[in-house]
Amino acid sequence: MRVVNFNPGPGALPVPVLEEAARDMLNWRGTGMSVMENSHRAKAVIAMAEEAEADMRSLLGLGPEWAVVFCQGGASLQFAMIALNFAGPAGRCDYINTGMWATKAYKEAGLCGASPRLAATSEPDDFTHIPEVFDFDPEAKYVHLTANNTVRGTQWKSYPRTPAPLMADMSSEFLSRPVELDRFSLIYAGAQKNAGPAGVAMTALRRELADRARPDVPSILSYPVHIKNESMYNTPPVWSIYISGLVFKWLINTIGGLSAMAEINRVKAETLYQAIDRSGGFYRGTARPDSRSHMNVTFLLPNEELNDRFKKEAQAAGLDGLGGHRSVGGLRASLYNAVTQADVNKLVEFMREFQRVRG
Amino acid sequence: MRVVNFNPGPGALPVPVLEEAARDMLNWRGTGMSVMENSHRAKAVIAMAEEAEADMRSLLGLGPEWAVVFCQGGASLQFAMIALNFAGPAGRCDYINTGMWATKAYKEAGLCGASPRLAATSEPDDFTHIPEVFDFDPEAKYVHLTANNTVRGTQWKSYPRTPAPLMADMSSEFLSRPVELDRFSLIYAGAQKNAGPAGVAMTALRRELADRARPDVPSILSYPVHIKNESMYNTPPVWSIYISGLVFKWLINTIGGLSAMAEINRVKAETLYQAIDRSGGFYRGTARPDSRSHMNVTFLLPNEELNDRFKKEAQAAGLDGLGGHRSVGGLRASLYNAVTQADVNKLVEFMREFQRVRG
Repeated sequence: MRVVNFNPGPGALPVPVLEEAARDMLNWRGTGMSVMENSHRAKAVIAMAEEAEADMRSLLGLGPEWAVVFCQGGASLQFAMIALNFAGPAGRCDYINTGMWATKAYKEAGLCGASPRLAATSEPDDFTHIPEVFDFDPEAKYVHLTANNTVRGTQWKSYPRTPAPLMADMSSEFLSRPVELDRFSLIYAGAQKNAGPAGVAMTALRRELADRARPDVPSILSYPVHIKNESMYNTPPVWSIYISGLVFKWLINTIGGLSAMAEINRVKAETLYQAIDRSGGFYRGTARPDSRSHMNVTFLLPNEELNDRFKKEAQAAGLDGLGGHRSVGGLRASLYNAVTQADVNKLVEFMREFQRVRG
Repeated sequence: MRVVNFNPGPGALPVPVLEEAARDMLNWRGTGMSVMENSHRAKAVIAMAEEAEADMRSLLGLGPEWAVVFCQGGASLQFAMIALNFAGPAGRCDYINTGMWATKAYKEAGLCGASPRLAATSEPDDFTHIPEVFDFDPEAKYVHLTANNTVRGTQWKSYPRTPAPLMADMSSEFLSRPVELDRFSLIYAGAQKNAGPAGVAMTALRRELADRARPDVPSILSYPVHIKNESMYNTPPVWSIYISGLVFKWLINTIGGLSAMAEINRVKAETLYQAIDRSGGFYRGTARPDSRSHMNVTFLLPNEELNDRFKKEAQAAGLDGLGGHRSVGGLRASLYNAVTQADVNKLVEFMREFQRVRG
């Protein structure tokens, strides 16, 4: 029995993707072995990885001026790679702090020897919204922001124009909507929210930026090395790329691309926010309405006991993964691409019934 | 139709492991979702990761004085982590050069700002053997070696006593035989040879060593950070750990542990080396007999044309992955744990028939 999966990441994957992966486990693409057992230098694996990159480019509309890199290490390794490649020792760089992951990115830049600085932060307001006022350093080598804040349930609606190249951690909204590419020089994402399983991160960066990367960086952390080797500098995470590639094809062929996906995600999120807002205060959203995320809907019940009871009874009803992040508590429904409108309707129905009985 | 898989890595996986993974794809351990869709903070995933670590400890005989870390980034990221954690800026460290991967480890230490030095090298003899004479730096912070050389088909038979802590890249022999743990302070391996799929590397290091790691290292590259967070500092590569864990259980329950595995591997390798040595010079091993690897058997036919023809006809006969590394050419049969004696017998039979027809 499948449950409804509101996990914050790793999260739900499309069922047809899982079915295909199971079916091809012992003999993938006629190779007589699993995709995992093929050499990464085998023609079939190279073709698969090239298809995945081409499909990601097509989904995002990335032209030839963009390089694409598939890396291991998640967004956390990208924190370090960005600072090492583009700031360097004592290099000045701006960070916008919108929550836990944005804070981590900022701190890691310091551990990499760079001199990061906060150009804006919503920490004084407990990260309940996206900042509107920025104090950019004209000498900064880049500006970094976090597109969607999984923990706090906030999301940028549009992006600022920045004096330095803008770089964004898009992990928890990657491929959930089209990207205003003209704003950015580098975007990256751990796959395990909308794009695939854990174990691979995707980065797209402008080639003119990559050309300016510092040379004094360990090879495995160097964007130019990964670009030159077409993401096969060392053995890539073949399985994670394979599953992500199947998700890309599902996005293109079944969903119809990112504009269609964004509309589905918008309706899913509105369904849930309306249920919250029309509950007469029984459910309460934690993010400021103008900053609400379409990916992670964070909310509270009138007290801790009801929060806990809601989570437990929901789980018993087959609605899984609704606990808030351990740092903030409360409830959170993650509505990633593979979560359907029908799944959200089930949650809303459960919420009404719970309020009727316990409210 | 399954083929016989002599790939050098990623390589063959045990069929029962693949069958279990396929069977549990849509509903793993009764969670109502794939293992990939579970949160890495879910009880079932934490239990699975803990089992994997416990089974790896049991296989290698690692006591509580050892910490175990599962990382992304392969052995290549370990090259950087070792130099950053244990050498640091201008820190002296010794490397033993036995081939392509050993050379890479050495060079990366330099790119990490350390001052690596060669304590021994078999490069003048084209890496056909393991060095016997060492010139250790008494001031070195550590000594690094590569246990098995996938490209050249050589392998250490026993390990030197070193003045500084010994660290070894065991990627292509990991879990193929017991390890003389008393020699080492740190061992690591990319999983994709004997231990699982690409996407995860396993490191075991003495806690007293980890306590001396440098603090000025990005979190994602810090051994103490990974140890403190029990390999869940950030989202771990859940699928790769899961499959590796199934391989560990197969090693324990079906094979009977590493001594039994080593004996199976010894007989497999001897079968193939005998076929080479008794071919009257038609097949010629490239490694010096005292340094021959039990994992990667490298050999040549009398000329390039026969090498190519052998590879093609073998592939047509369902014997896959026999090409030598692109840097050296020739032929190579990788006899990792999941390759059976029956598989090796098929190869030997094919070799005899090929020699009869083309010799």
